[in-house]
Amino acid sequence: MKRNIKVILWGLGNMGSMMAKALLKKEGIEIVGAIAKREEKGGKDLGKLLNFGKELKIKVTNDAKSLFETLKADILLHCTTSFVKQAYNQIKLALEKKINVITISEEMYNPWVKNPGLAEEIDNLAKMNGVTVLGTGINPGFVLDTLILTLTGVCLEVDEIKASRINDLSPYGPTVMRTQGVGTTIEEFEKGISDGTIVGHIGFLESVSTIAKYLGWKLNEIKQTREPIISNVLRKTQHALVKPGMVAGCNHKAYGIENGKVVITLEHPQQILPELEGIKTGDYISIKGKPEINLSIKPEIQGGIGTVAIAINMIPQVINSESGLKSMMDMQFCHAVLSDFGELIKN
Amino acid sequence: MKRNIKVILWGLGNMGSMMAKALLKKEGIEIVGAIAKREEKGGKDLGKLLNFGKELKIKVTNDAKSLFETLKADILLHCTTSFVKQAYNQIKLALEKKINVITISEEMYNPWVKNPGLAEEIDNLAKMNGVTVLGTGINPGFVLDTLILTLTGVCLEVDEIKASRINDLSPYGPTVMRTQGVGTTIEEFEKGISDGTIVGHIGFLESVSTIAKYLGWKLNEIKQTREPIISNVLRKTQHALVKPGMVAGCNHKAYGIENGKVVITLEHPQQILPELEGIKTGDYISIKGKPEINLSIKPEIQGGIGTVAIAINMIPQVINSESGLKSMMDMQFCHAVLSDFGELIKN
Repeated sequence: MKRNIKVILWGLGNMGSMMAKALLKKEGIEIVGAIAKREEKGGKDLGKLLNFGKELKIKVTNDAKSLFETLKADILLHCTTSFVKQAYNQIKLALEKKINVITISEEMYNPWVKNPGLAEEIDNLAKMNGVTVLGTGINPGFVLDTLILTLTGVCLEVDEIKASRINDLSPYGPTVMRTQGVGTTIEEFEKGISDGTIVGHIGFLESVSTIAKYLGWKLNEIKQTREPIISNVLRKTQHALVKPGMVAGCNHKAYGIENGKVVITLEHPQQILPELEGIKTGDYISIKGKPEINLSIKPEIQGGIGTVAIAINMIPQVINSESGLKSMMDMQFCHAVLSDFGELIKN
Repeated sequence: MKRNIKVILWGLGNMGSMMAKALLKKEGIEIVGAIAKREEKGGKDLGKLLNFGKELKIKVTNDAKSLFETLKADILLHCTTSFVKQAYNQIKLALEKKINVITISEEMYNPWVKNPGLAEEIDNLAKMNGVTVLGTGINPGFVLDTLILTLTGVCLEVDEIKASRINDLSPYGPTVMRTQGVGTTIEEFEKGISDGTIVGHIGFLESVSTIAKYLGWKLNEIKQTREPIISNVLRKTQHALVKPGMVAGCNHKAYGIENGKVVITLEHPQQILPELEGIKTGDYISIKGKPEINLSIKPEIQGGIGTVAIAINMIPQVINSESGLKSMMDMQFCHAVLSDFGELIKN
């Protein structure tokens, strides 16, 4: 029976706002509730808050607990944090009300890596309540893990994987500039790395572990390096100024090592205006094996919109899935959902 | 409980022989029977027939019916024909003995398109016997359908899809040269197309229909064209000679048309030695939408080995799947199976 899928949105920052706007263009799916952290957003109409020009009759709340007590929904779209420890209590609220969850928290792409205890609790809670939890996004979630594994599906042998995602941070705001070290001196960058204020990419441990798991590789070690991308030229955007000799971003790399040999290398150099030094943005995957596969996607798949799209496109699958904490690799091949979402729900 | 997966191989031509050789290198899986069409292969040991240098104690048979009467197995790997009508009776024999089937028959990638009646019979028979049938391969099966749809998973909107697979037929033998029109004059090519001896690619109807189905596009028409690739230079391989002005291969294109607009264009120009005219082989996918995606895989993913790999890598999923005639899009994301196959079987 055709029906509308009811969505609660948690997190109305950049990603959550994009989710809301995208959902409003889709058929057979509707936003029934929205939760914001910032107090000044509470009580406002979602449509007004997102500058829709019209009211949506959805009042944004700061009080998640009350919302879940009163509101029925099929799924929570969760866009509040990168970290399992912060996501856990929020996801729990939804599961206890038998609401499925899709989260774009990077660590939740494979929460078993850093937080096996919490992952198990989420899995149990989801099973007890007959609903499903999935972590996804463009990366982790697609480019540097799911897409790589999918390509190995046409390989008889895989000896080594190298992949990189080269993007341009120019569209992003001050928070991203700060956490990627854009505009710092080399000394400031090194200090930022050691005190944790410059973080690079979140998700490498999760991606590398997932690739290794499905290829049956027993890694002895996952090593990560974060190096300053030192600019040779002047790079200037709305939110950053990088003089020659200063840092234009963070080159974050991860290595999966099996028996002393690097078998997985993932690179994600994030900087502003890489093309000023002749660097083409793109997603690049190279698989050594039988056959060899050398893939390029140029420019790289847009991060923000890609994350919003895959989170939304997975909704029917997550609702139809057997219960528990699932990984992307437990799901069926994804595809854009351009028709009525309600028609894809099995029961 | 860990156990060996038992495989029957049907078809010992080029693809079947590659399957056998690949399976022998894998753990937790064994060939228990092999069926050949050619009488001279019957009675021979599979190892000797494939020039393994040693016996495998698997006697090749021409008598499929007796083999299925006496032999227990988990799955049939079926490599005998491109066509559903020819595959049907063979697949039926396996299903009636509760044996799962993976077939590389191109039409079986989506048998509902040309043979809905037979597809329904296969589906019913598989369900009645609690087993699964899957059609797969590099193309159809992966490059020009599954991979395209998977990429749309990170898209919010898809307006148009264009993709091409440009390959080099040089390694292939006389049959392929003939069915692609390599070495013919333009007149001979046109005659071959009209009398059906030159066929181009088999699988476009199946790929286009599958893409449209999952994107919810209601196509009014699928149009195909097959044009001679006329060489400007001398092209010479072991099995073909193409003088300037003669035909180096067949440029087969398919168009999916919705409301008068071409929304899907798939191209598969197959020729010998394209690089002599500066053409780079590769798989190319371009998705117009939000976001745009432009993918290249250079050179193209090798066809033979890719087909063998995906057929073998899907074995655990097919055995674990709920019963019926399934499509690749019903399956979970694929990946190379490099560890013990038996450990991936759920019960």
